[in-house]
Amino acid sequence: MTIMVKVALAPVHDEHLVSAINDAGAQLVSIDDAQALVWIGGADGFPELPDGIEWVALKTAGIEEFMNAGVIDDRRQWTNASGFYAAGCAEHALALLLAGLRQINTAVRNGWDKDGIDTKVRTLRGATVGIIGAGGIGRELTPRLKACGARVLAVNHSGRPVDGADETVPTSELDAVWGRVDHVVLSAPSTAATHHMINDDSLAALPAHAWVVNVARGPLVDEAALHRALVAGEIAGAALDVTDPEPPAADNPLFALPNVIISPHVANPASALTREMAPFLAENIRRFAAGDELISKVVVGRDY
Amino acid sequence: MTIMVKVALAPVHDEHLVSAINDAGAQLVSIDDAQALVWIGGADGFPELPDGIEWVALKTAGIEEFMNAGVIDDRRQWTNASGFYAAGCAEHALALLLAGLRQINTAVRNGWDKDGIDTKVRTLRGATVGIIGAGGIGRELTPRLKACGARVLAVNHSGRPVDGADETVPTSELDAVWGRVDHVVLSAPSTAATHHMINDDSLAALPAHAWVVNVARGPLVDEAALHRALVAGEIAGAALDVTDPEPPAADNPLFALPNVIISPHVANPASALTREMAPFLAENIRRFAAGDELISKVVVGRDY
Repeated sequence: MTIMVKVALAPVHDEHLVSAINDAGAQLVSIDDAQALVWIGGADGFPELPDGIEWVALKTAGIEEFMNAGVIDDRRQWTNASGFYAAGCAEHALALLLAGLRQINTAVRNGWDKDGIDTKVRTLRGATVGIIGAGGIGRELTPRLKACGARVLAVNHSGRPVDGADETVPTSELDAVWGRVDHVVLSAPSTAATHHMINDDSLAALPAHAWVVNVARGPLVDEAALHRALVAGEIAGAALDVTDPEPPAADNPLFALPNVIISPHVANPASALTREMAPFLAENIRRFAAGDELISKVVVGRDY
Repeated sequence: MTIMVKVALAPVHDEHLVSAINDAGAQLVSIDDAQALVWIGGADGFPELPDGIEWVALKTAGIEEFMNAGVIDDRRQWTNASGFYAAGCAEHALALLLAGLRQINTAVRNGWDKDGIDTKVRTLRGATVGIIGAGGIGRELTPRLKACGARVLAVNHSGRPVDGADETVPTSELDAVWGRVDHVVLSAPSTAATHHMINDDSLAALPAHAWVVNVARGPLVDEAALHRALVAGEIAGAALDVTDPEPPAADNPLFALPNVIISPHVANPASALTREMAPFLAENIRRFAAGDELISKVVVGRDY
């Protein structure tokens, strides 16, 4: 006979996650009675955890905020949402890259400017796309790029081959990648090692027709260096779903460049977040009940 | 021993096509000495054809212009470029559809409007996309959509199953399709039968979240009906690479709508056209020399 897992959901309830908790056969309880806490707020207001809490499930993939606030301890298991939103982020990355290559940005801004746009349209077919930080998003993005006839050069920590990629190289060889790709998609976490990986040097090494797409975190890009490179024509364009800081200043000079697309951090829309998270939460509750390894466990102290 | 095929290229020479003619083992000659004419101009200025011309290769997929000018006769073979540009057009259709679903247009227009954009972002995953007129472009678009997790409902003349599509139905059942799809991509030729297939009735049958993408020909869409439907919120948006007429009037009211994307007929950019056409021309010259069936033959009098 199975004992029901007791799960708390805070700071607010949410229909998708309440359904997931029920579907997984768990009991929704208050935090003081819970074995597991599903925390769908930010680091501000994170509660003192009762000793009974054996597992905390966070709703975001990036957890810098919680790391910085010092709430993540080693007295229980923590999971983030790494991988839960990968497919949506990959789709957004493809949308941004294609929008740049097909000059959708220019068409939206300039109207029927056929002479100005026709010669600037590029194709993904035959292009090599570097996916920098090829984890969950990279696994989802790779088949989408391959279906468009692109070649995929994946870069990840270990260099372990990414399914479907034409080539995978370890992060230690990143310096040599910029000169070998037509375009790059950034999907790495924000760490000391990835800070400003797009800088004067990498921008100079990229080809002049390159589009840089960032669906990861703003600090991966040195925005001042990017602005210089775009103005100088060192690369063709940048399509960013993230900036540093967020929101960006209204007078951020990147907004004024014709070859920049900025979407407001919606690769994983907040409005769809709990709906996307729900099936993964249900699976993790089943695993927790069975004593199995949880999906998307936070490895405390790991620097990606 | 093979006799070299004599090919004329007019009204101008082009490096990609000259290479293709040479690569195929043909001889570049003047039109009076030629067996085949590669005509890369429009219908205006089309020459009186010497009797020696057995085959005319046109550079465009749509040949209404030549049909209307009455230059296409049944005394020789004619080929158009149907299918030559299919991959590029499919890529552009995907770029337009994703730009709409991921609200790239709104981001370009409005900047960091997170609250306004977040709730409007949609995904291709799980969506059913109708490809109306699923020929060459449909065959290329289908695997791209499937890689994004969409379901494909193809519509073509015969109803013969399109490779990879989840379902194919014949044009005769088109009326029932509008209510069964989330989004549509138009890739049918412009004929009497396809004229204004997007009209008050089809727009009313489409769901309110639908995006309509047109990479075919402007006359497929009743633009006045489309404008009414967009203003009324009957569909979510329209992404058009073609208009009726072209170029559109600067005060075409579609330009003023926030949920419209118009690109200036660049799914198949004129600047890349002969480069894309070259390998197909070389193959057709080899077939002509061998007496084999040509690729992309025009069937005179056929109404698609």
